[in-house]
Amino acid sequence: MLAELRGLNEECGVFGIWGHEDAAQISYYALHALQHRGQEGAGIVVTNGEGFQVIKDEGLVNEVFAGNRLNDLKGHGGIAQVRYSSENGRGIENVQPLLFRSTTGSISLAHNGNIVNAVELREHLERQGSIFQTNSDTEVLAHLIKRSSGSLTQRDRVKKALSMLKGAFAFVMLTEDSLMIAQDPNGLRPLSLGKLGDAWVVASETCAFDIIGAEHVRSVEPGELIIINNKGIHSERFAPAADSAMCSMEYVYFARPDSDIDGINIHMARKRCGKRLAREVKIDADVVTGVPDSSISAAIGFSEESGIPYELGLIKNRYVGRTFIEPSQELREKGVKMKLSPVRQVVNGKRVVMVDDSIVRGTTSKRIVTLLKEAGATEVHVVIASPPLVSPCFYGVDISTDSELIATNRSIDEIRELIGADSLTFLSPEAMLESIGRPDTTKNCGQCLACFTGEYPTDIYSDTALPHEKERVR
Amino acid sequence: MLAELRGLNEECGVFGIWGHEDAAQISYYALHALQHRGQEGAGIVVTNGEGFQVIKDEGLVNEVFAGNRLNDLKGHGGIAQVRYSSENGRGIENVQPLLFRSTTGSISLAHNGNIVNAVELREHLERQGSIFQTNSDTEVLAHLIKRSSGSLTQRDRVKKALSMLKGAFAFVMLTEDSLMIAQDPNGLRPLSLGKLGDAWVVASETCAFDIIGAEHVRSVEPGELIIINNKGIHSERFAPAADSAMCSMEYVYFARPDSDIDGINIHMARKRCGKRLAREVKIDADVVTGVPDSSISAAIGFSEESGIPYELGLIKNRYVGRTFIEPSQELREKGVKMKLSPVRQVVNGKRVVMVDDSIVRGTTSKRIVTLLKEAGATEVHVVIASPPLVSPCFYGVDISTDSELIATNRSIDEIRELIGADSLTFLSPEAMLESIGRPDTTKNCGQCLACFTGEYPTDIYSDTALPHEKERVR
Amino acid sequence: MLAELRGLNEECGVFGIWGHEDAAQISYYALHALQHRGQEGAGIVVTNGEGFQVIKDEGLVNEVFAGNRLNDLKGHGGIAQVRYSSENGRGIENVQPLLFRSTTGSISLAHNGNIVNAVELREHLERQGSIFQTNSDTEVLAHLIKRSSGSLTQRDRVKKALSMLKGAFAFVMLTEDSLMIAQDPNGLRPLSLGKLGDAWVVASETCAFDIIGAEHVRSVEPGELIIINNKGIHSERFAPAADSAMCSMEYVYFARPDSDIDGINIHMARKRCGKRLAREVKIDADVVTGVPDSSISAAIGFSEESGIPYELGLIKNRYVGRTFIEPSQELREKGVKMKLSPVRQVVNGKRVVMVDDSIVRGTTSKRIVTLLKEAGATEVHVVIASPPLVSPCFYGVDISTDSELIATNRSIDEIRELIGADSLTFLSPEAMLESIGRPDTTKNCGQCLACFTGEYPTDIYSDTALPHEKERVR
Amino acid sequence: MLAELRGLNEECGVFGIWGHEDAAQISYYALHALQHRGQEGAGIVVTNGEGFQVIKDEGLVNEVFAGNRLNDLKGHGGIAQVRYSSENGRGIENVQPLLFRSTTGSISLAHNGNIVNAVELREHLERQGSIFQTNSDTEVLAHLIKRSSGSLTQRDRVKKALSMLKGAFAFVMLTEDSLMIAQDPNGLRPLSLGKLGDAWVVASETCAFDIIGAEHVRSVEPGELIIINNKGIHSERFAPAADSAMCSMEYVYFARPDSDIDGINIHMARKRCGKRLAREVKIDADVVTGVPDSSISAAIGFSEESGIPYELGLIKNRYVGRTFIEPSQELREKGVKMKLSPVRQVVNGKRVVMVDDSIVRGTTSKRIVTLLKEAGATEVHVVIASPPLVSPCFYGVDISTDSELIATNRSIDEIRELIGADSLTFLSPEAMLESIGRPDTTKNCGQCLACFTGEYPTDIYSDTALPHEKERVR
Repeated sequence: MLAELRGLNEECGVFGIWGHEDAAQISYYALHALQHRGQEGAGIVVTNGEGFQVIKDEGLVNEVFAGNRLNDLKGHGGIAQVRYSSENGRGIENVQPLLFRSTTGSISLAHNGNIVNAVELREHLERQGSIFQTNSDTEVLAHLIKRSSGSLTQRDRVKKALSMLKGAFAFVMLTEDSLMIAQDPNGLRPLSLGKLGDAWVVASETCAFDIIGAEHVRSVEPGELIIINNKGIHSERFAPAADSAMCSMEYVYFARPDSDIDGINIHMARKRCGKRLAREVKIDADVVTGVPDSSISAAIGFSEESGIPYELGLIKNRYVGRTFIEPSQELREKGVKMKLSPVRQVVNGKRVVMVDDSIVRGTTSKRIVTLLKEAGATEVHVVIASPPLVSPCFYGVDISTDSELIATNRSIDEIRELIGADSLTFLSPEAMLESIGRPDTTKNCGQCLACFTGEYPTDIYSDTALPHEKERVR
Repeated sequence: MLAELRGLNEECGVFGIWGHEDAAQISYYALHALQHRGQEGAGIVVTNGEGFQVIKDEGLVNEVFAGNRLNDLKGHGGIAQVRYSSENGRGIENVQPLLFRSTTGSISLAHNGNIVNAVELREHLERQGSIFQTNSDTEVLAHLIKRSSGSLTQRDRVKKALSMLKGAFAFVMLTEDSLMIAQDPNGLRPLSLGKLGDAWVVASETCAFDIIGAEHVRSVEPGELIIINNKGIHSERFAPAADSAMCSMEYVYFARPDSDIDGINIHMARKRCGKRLAREVKIDADVVTGVPDSSISAAIGFSEESGIPYELGLIKNRYVGRTFIEPSQELREKGVKMKLSPVRQVVNGKRVVMVDDSIVRGTTSKRIVTLLKEAGATEVHVVIASPPLVSPCFYGVDISTDSELIATNRSIDEIRELIGADSLTFLSPEAMLESIGRPDTTKNCGQCLACFTGEYPTDIYSDTALPHEKERVR
Repeated sequence: MLAELRGLNEECGVFGIWGHEDAAQISYYALHALQHRGQEGAGIVVTNGEGFQVIKDEGLVNEVFAGNRLNDLKGHGGIAQVRYSSENGRGIENVQPLLFRSTTGSISLAHNGNIVNAVELREHLERQGSIFQTNSDTEVLAHLIKRSSGSLTQRDRVKKALSMLKGAFAFVMLTEDSLMIAQDPNGLRPLSLGKLGDAWVVASETCAFDIIGAEHVRSVEPGELIIINNKGIHSERFAPAADSAMCSMEYVYFARPDSDIDGINIHMARKRCGKRLAREVKIDADVVTGVPDSSISAAIGFSEESGIPYELGLIKNRYVGRTFIEPSQELREKGVKMKLSPVRQVVNGKRVVMVDDSIVRGTTSKRIVTLLKEAGATEVHVVIASPPLVSPCFYGVDISTDSELIATNRSIDEIRELIGADSLTFLSPEAMLESIGRPDTTKNCGQCLACFTGEYPTDIYSDTALPHEKERVR
Repeated sequence: MLAELRGLNEECGVFGIWGHEDAAQISYYALHALQHRGQEGAGIVVTNGEGFQVIKDEGLVNEVFAGNRLNDLKGHGGIAQVRYSSENGRGIENVQPLLFRSTTGSISLAHNGNIVNAVELREHLERQGSIFQTNSDTEVLAHLIKRSSGSLTQRDRVKKALSMLKGAFAFVMLTEDSLMIAQDPNGLRPLSLGKLGDAWVVASETCAFDIIGAEHVRSVEPGELIIINNKGIHSERFAPAADSAMCSMEYVYFARPDSDIDGINIHMARKRCGKRLAREVKIDADVVTGVPDSSISAAIGFSEESGIPYELGLIKNRYVGRTFIEPSQELREKGVKMKLSPVRQVVNGKRVVMVDDSIVRGTTSKRIVTLLKEAGATEVHVVIASPPLVSPCFYGVDISTDSELIATNRSIDEIRELIGADSLTFLSPEAMLESIGRPDTTKNCGQCLACFTGEYPTDIYSDTALPHEKERVR
């Protein structure tokens, strides 16, 4: 489904590098590969061992680093981020990496995830006199580190601070002499370690390794703190590993088809989901089409298994960008439509299987079904390559609140009716877990199913902010 | 194949509208659908019957009309263009529509194509004292119209001027009281007429009609001049129709899969080309993959006919835009690659059929074959859904000169060797014509095959400029 | 008086150079010295003998040439302009120098003045098929040159074209092999010739020579065409000299105090006007103050002659620029005032002589008198260092139409009453001519007095446009 | 002397307002009047009682608030600043007002001056875990306030924090319910209180009151904290007043001629300095000229007292702005000069008295003397309206270090020799104090003479940063 058409957004993608003389350039290319994880801000911070240099701004990677600005960043270590932001988290001051300069040791941080006890921790710190610069939950970690007793080593201060955080977090941190990497105890957000020649790299997705020619080494483990400096790499735990619970939506929707998470390729996992659906439901149809871009893999799988030809029944308008002027209600009623066009000669007079990755509010699904029927489709069978979404996410995915989710209190048939489809099929949680096929033998195969089941792998606090409610401080 | 990776570029896309109170807004949405035809400039000119208003600039449609600028354009008639420009044709003054204000009648023009006797006509006009504002061959038409004897009606002056032009041209022209549309005698460039409620619309591709909810009426005929004003629509010929010769590359590469040209859907035509290839050559392979975006349809067709599974073996990096900083030679050697990533888990250990739409210089094909092999492909069989390119185009396609075309003086096996493929197959011109299946019974089924055969449907002058040589006046 | 406060604006300043390897850089510095003559656009065109390079845009010189853009301009010949534009002449296409590229010989032009038969000439040319690019009267000359019979030499074509122009004009023109300079037959606009080492330079004001270290040689003569190329300098007449009629307002208001016009220093001329006033009227007062910046010289003269101390009674707010947000009517009523501040401790309780250079509509004079009285001045005696303005200017000065001029149908005492002054004194035309002291023995000492007397030195046509009416073509 | 020509810069100007519905607009106009105190950044923060709104950026006031951005700021209370910044203090994050959002009470601050124990305080706070956002000494006050014991009232926390600061400071602070104003115990920087209708205003200079139509009430007293809220105005001391020590350079150079400091008008004070010089030294000369802009008043005074005519001998090029491209060394040698032009007809063959306000490094004085002699002056007598500068300033004036000051280890005659003058006269400290004429009867008439004498009115710490050394944290 189209990210622009619904409130389902990833918070961001992070990258880190240590030991490469072109740290900024490598980070820049890596951010391009991660751009699909956040299009509203980008930044790179590098160090050459003496101080930091930073470029960050709102906008796409290409916009933020336009001109020759990148050449100003000289260093062998760096961290970088692309960022999606909810309405209240906008503003240049919230663009990451955050950089905290101090006579007692400067530090820069970038983060993917959501800390569920951030409001509590912030209020505690402010009562003690701390002054925050941003609305970001990321900043809490910096203050916790600085507040730790001065008698501890920096490593112990970082571990102590990390152990106070609850929720989903993949952190990359940069000091003048080290790159630090941390993953929350449940491993809710993907984070992979790689090597580029002698340099170490870390990224939210492995597609960033391919673009820079790096080799994948392993995933960062839940509860692990990795410290890389000129002496080498060091790993230890800041918390015991809890039940592994990788975000299911990474496989379903967020990650790029060419990325692997814990050894499983995204395109292949999605294709298996599509095949499984074709085995579970028999549809008498003429063509299979996927909603671009994230549903293409499942549609190919459905076509291959069912023997129904795969066609380009829907075309995405690639040039509808952030500054696109939406048609007025009046113009929409006059027929102006954007972002998706049906291919009339493909669907006219045909029974169409329309494969999508998920349904959030249902309004987009309804619009696409209508588009296809207006273009002449005689039947539209909607096939969803994941289970119904029924609960909000507190771990960094900007899903709507449950009252907005079409599936929360409705039967499959009621949803089908609402979106105007001739049939509607979801994948069950069990079938999805089997199709994705994570090797884990733990609960839920090590996947977080909270948005499908309402069972959260961590505590949730009364003041845990949903992403779009994050800003509480005026 | 990727437009960014080679010198194969369409000159532009045009749009026109008459009789709709939101002429500028409708043009804006239509330009989005045509954006793939030109990404270097965009413009809209509208009239409300008294004077003209214009917004145009270098950049993408979204950039040119950012902010609320569009609301400044009020009128019921308009013309618009998106533009690709060769090195010498850059500069804001060359962005179209061109607008010529005059006390004897103002006129605005936009153009798709290339006038092969433009240099000759321009020199003739300049010797008579005309002063040109641009390097564009489009401006020649304006001067020819203004120079015609004052005793003729405007319609006759336009006809007389059009009859002096040789080459490929699809013109949209706007005066304060009419929209005029003209197609060259060979019909080299696509141009379709449609209706949007009571308003008339015209566009280079029918995908522009789908986005605005307009209905396709018919193609503009070779040698036809259409004049639309408040009294209605009027058609006549400014020249007898010559042999119809629609550009083959529109079917092969340029047009959007959801467009139809003369009743033939582009996606379906390409898919038939892919199927035909699968019938003509038997390859023992494990997966079929297409080079995104324009080869996907042919790859799907090849897969369907051959029974070899279709996979996403190559991912396009969608965020590598115009301002992307290319990696230095040194970084490229260190493994940094952009724009296309192979999906290792899809191709590793597999025999891969790589379907592409065409080969120009061969450097990109070689790069992609290498990418796939480095990702573990054991064999790479390259299948091209068109014949070898051997001659330059004088009609508006920025193909390299023949000395740069890899196929000009080489056998198929020499090309295969150069690009490192295990096998290489082209479609023959005849098989391509049959697969596309134009209804015409004239020579070449009404398609221009000049770039494949060197036989040009019009005269070519000694000073006819190739697109990248256009600017001769200092 | 303050230019920003009234409709009294110079059209522009021009500069030209031939034979200096840093032609663009020298032009850039010269434009700074001429910036007071036009703040709405700036441009430089250079030639290295093969083609032209141009940078021009709306904005101040500093803005137009920001960054390192200037380094792109390489050449030994150049022309440049700073520009004031009336409402209808806005737009980047009207910024000069204009550049006309042609296979029959390219030419670039910049102009200071106003051609009074421009509308007539343009209509004539358009009827013959010429297409104009701008609203500028400057473009008429380019078309006239191009239209001249091809059998003439370029020099003769330029002379013939110049001879068809009526009005005020100082032209600098650049071809690939020469710099051409022309002055209208009355010499209405200042234009001086100088030398910078071996290079020739020409400028609207001599202050441009001081800044670049050039030596003043002589004024360009009325009706003279100067052609400078690599062979040397050549002068001839394109028209017999008419009565010399240098614009009086150049001495009174426009020119910089450090410029000389025909050997007379502007500061000294204004000071003599102030002294003359002090001899003509005896005022019993405590302090003399001038309205910054153009009246300071006259105020110093008045003080020196009268013995009344000169003080800074009014301060100009230098940072109120083009983008300044004017206070709303409501805020103005609450006391917000800009641009000029009275110095309370200087004028409080004092009888003040307020010297100004001229009065146009009178609204500003009234405002300043009010400011001074609110700051405690017990009496305000207004002394104007020029005669009353009663007629519009057709030669390039954007004076209001005569119905707006406060002096057109009013007695001195009525004006005094309207502006709230305790007394009001003007300089008579004769006293002004004597004080300025031009050496000419011709009529009016070779000065144009049209705005003071309504007697114009050239024909005026029924369709001669005032500067603010210039754009007649839609 | 020209600010651009030397390292003598004021740190900034501040403004505050409470109780006016157009707080942002009024602040905008006031900043224009204060623009001469800082041209590198500007900002306004307003509150409507619930939260804050802020606009700030690098650039001039006109640039920062271009467009309609100002209309977004709604509130009845506001603070504002214009800023000069030393090399290390650049960057948008250092532009003031600073804004610290907190759940325990947000606060915004703007500051003029230099806190001499800032480094010490910052290190102390960082050791306790505080994280700083800027390099600014201003931020220290915010952290001190937040760190104070939670049992104190806000007023007491502010007083306690202020009492820990040493040095020169004029603070304006804004909370959601009050405007707070504080002046250091020596009153080193000017700060005046005024009324605008029912609203209270405060500004670094009284010229800001004139522009907005406000009435001057009194100066803020040394060691005073003023709190203004909806209940009214409240004043108390946070420290006992020390010896009053207003910065002498405010009178000599920084402040605008139309401002009053402690009841003394700047123009009149400078004019008295000029008159005093004319009484102290008898020069046989033909003309007096001042170096624009700050020396004009003293030159007028010298002329009036000596009877030697005052002339415009030097013209400032007003359009040489921040983005001006400096001529290369080569071009300078060819005669290109900027910023100041001598008026040849005024000085040629004359004995010239050149009045300037001060001499810092002497290079500019030398250049001006040379300019005048090249323009024909037979003698140049330099008269300086202040004593020789011999010591650096730690209170916010960016004077060079003492090793760069021409007067540190040289006799008057050695300086005269170096700058090439025929004679050189300074004002003695005593004569300057008498001429300025502050009413105070305390030491030095309540003026700080540190830069003339090396005697500092406060402690100076070993790590007190000079303005250009401010940034010590990497």
